[in-house]
Amino acid sequence: MRDFSNDHSALALNTATLGHNLPGRGAGWSPEQVIDACAARGYGGIVFWQRELGRAAAQIGDRVRAAGMEVTGLCRTPYLTGSEAGTDAAVTESIDTAAALGAPVLTIVTGGTELGSKGLDDSRKRLAERVAHHADHAAACGVSLALEPLNPMFGGNRTCIFTVRDALDICDMVGKDNVGIAVDVYHVWWDTTLAESLLAASGHILGYHLCDWLENTRDMLLDRGMMGDGVADLKGIRAAVEAAGYNGKCEVEIFSAVDWWARSPDEVLDVIVDRFRSCC
Amino acid sequence: MRDFSNDHSALALNTATLGHNLPGRGAGWSPEQVIDACAARGYGGIVFWQRELGRAAAQIGDRVRAAGMEVTGLCRTPYLTGSEAGTDAAVTESIDTAAALGAPVLTIVTGGTELGSKGLDDSRKRLAERVAHHADHAAACGVSLALEPLNPMFGGNRTCIFTVRDALDICDMVGKDNVGIAVDVYHVWWDTTLAESLLAASGHILGYHLCDWLENTRDMLLDRGMMGDGVADLKGIRAAVEAAGYNGKCEVEIFSAVDWWARSPDEVLDVIVDRFRSCC
Repeated sequence: MRDFSNDHSALALNTATLGHNLPGRGAGWSPEQVIDACAARGYGGIVFWQRELGRAAAQIGDRVRAAGMEVTGLCRTPYLTGSEAGTDAAVTESIDTAAALGAPVLTIVTGGTELGSKGLDDSRKRLAERVAHHADHAAACGVSLALEPLNPMFGGNRTCIFTVRDALDICDMVGKDNVGIAVDVYHVWWDTTLAESLLAASGHILGYHLCDWLENTRDMLLDRGMMGDGVADLKGIRAAVEAAGYNGKCEVEIFSAVDWWARSPDEVLDVIVDRFRSCC
Repeated sequence: MRDFSNDHSALALNTATLGHNLPGRGAGWSPEQVIDACAARGYGGIVFWQRELGRAAAQIGDRVRAAGMEVTGLCRTPYLTGSEAGTDAAVTESIDTAAALGAPVLTIVTGGTELGSKGLDDSRKRLAERVAHHADHAAACGVSLALEPLNPMFGGNRTCIFTVRDALDICDMVGKDNVGIAVDVYHVWWDTTLAESLLAASGHILGYHLCDWLENTRDMLLDRGMMGDGVADLKGIRAAVEAAGYNGKCEVEIFSAVDWWARSPDEVLDVIVDRFRSCC
């Protein structure tokens, strides 16, 4: 297991942690300001959201690399299943944006259950079909697709996969080398079978996301905790992720309307470095 | 698999479905009014909450039986783990109330993670110790203890077991014949491994709870759906529960502040019978 206590070069920022810098969510920093602030603190990478980039993806990617960091990934495709599923054209656009940005990984939050269906079989079949449909174009662009299982509270309208095992089942159904899994501690910390599922998913893990699960979660979407403030066994989970062969960046992604989005980005970025070295 | 299409004698009401009849939650019916209304519609059983009974548990139990129904169970012990864990005296009181009521099953919602702990091992060890400590007195009272896994959104402050497999692990740690599992579709509908976990839990299933998971869940606690209005595969789950040997009552438990608690109890009880026969 890697020792981060004096080295945070494996640390990546997901810009959601600064409220996407959208009006009313965070301080409104531009992508360029985020890049400079992360580089100044020795972050190793940044993960952007498609809506932050507009037509400037290539320039933003170049600026990240010129600052000595990597673009770790892009969030995310439109939903692929459920009543809010996006079009194939929108999925292709997100793949092309990842390619322009130079992001090796594009995250997939699957979307919810198919209209009128009961249970998850129909939704997962549709999910696998759509991922397979887009995987070859992604591969031609040098982009891998990372299926992210979500906490079961997001069943119904946001996801149809809930565990690393679920995500691995979809990988197996799709059968493409550039389709894998994003592991987020917020979504999987509670899973007793996580270590064995991660071992089974060895070689398929494309990303590792950090935050913490607060003892008292006040909001389903926007009350994630800073690492160390919650109850997740962050070091134990990372040990299992690394035992399964993952040695890439660790991406901090904290949706926190009432706490961290209300603080200055400089403070948030400093606290992340400290907690990454001490708690993760 | 049992055929309920023309027979709802296996249907039990959990009084939470009528808002516990507390002020501001439901119509304020007394336990006696609930008993009469269920008996008039041919319900097979009722599950009460301890706080509704006061010192009248024995009389209420007798009234249920005199009306031709059974007391299916009692909700619930205080939490056994986490920062809001109850005392041993309070646990004993809930067991004694179940005995007085003539309830064969007392539900356990475990409580959350132990203070200062990371992950779930410490909490589960403490849970198993406390369940074992109380199991013999419960057995002497003719009461079985049913561990109820909760949806992972309730990790942290409400539960430290999330799946049937988790609950079975605790049963194995406790090793007492009168300790088993309550299976609630709301909490486990998403679990791909449910059928295999239920088979492994054969002989340990002490209760089966019905409601539905709505596509768009607006509140973590109080937005459960009526059977048929959501995305859970209710017939598939019951088939798996019965394949594991359970043939007891099916208990409808719907926490619904904005919908079903705002309706008349008569309407709610009628809809339940209809949906039980058609959707479950």
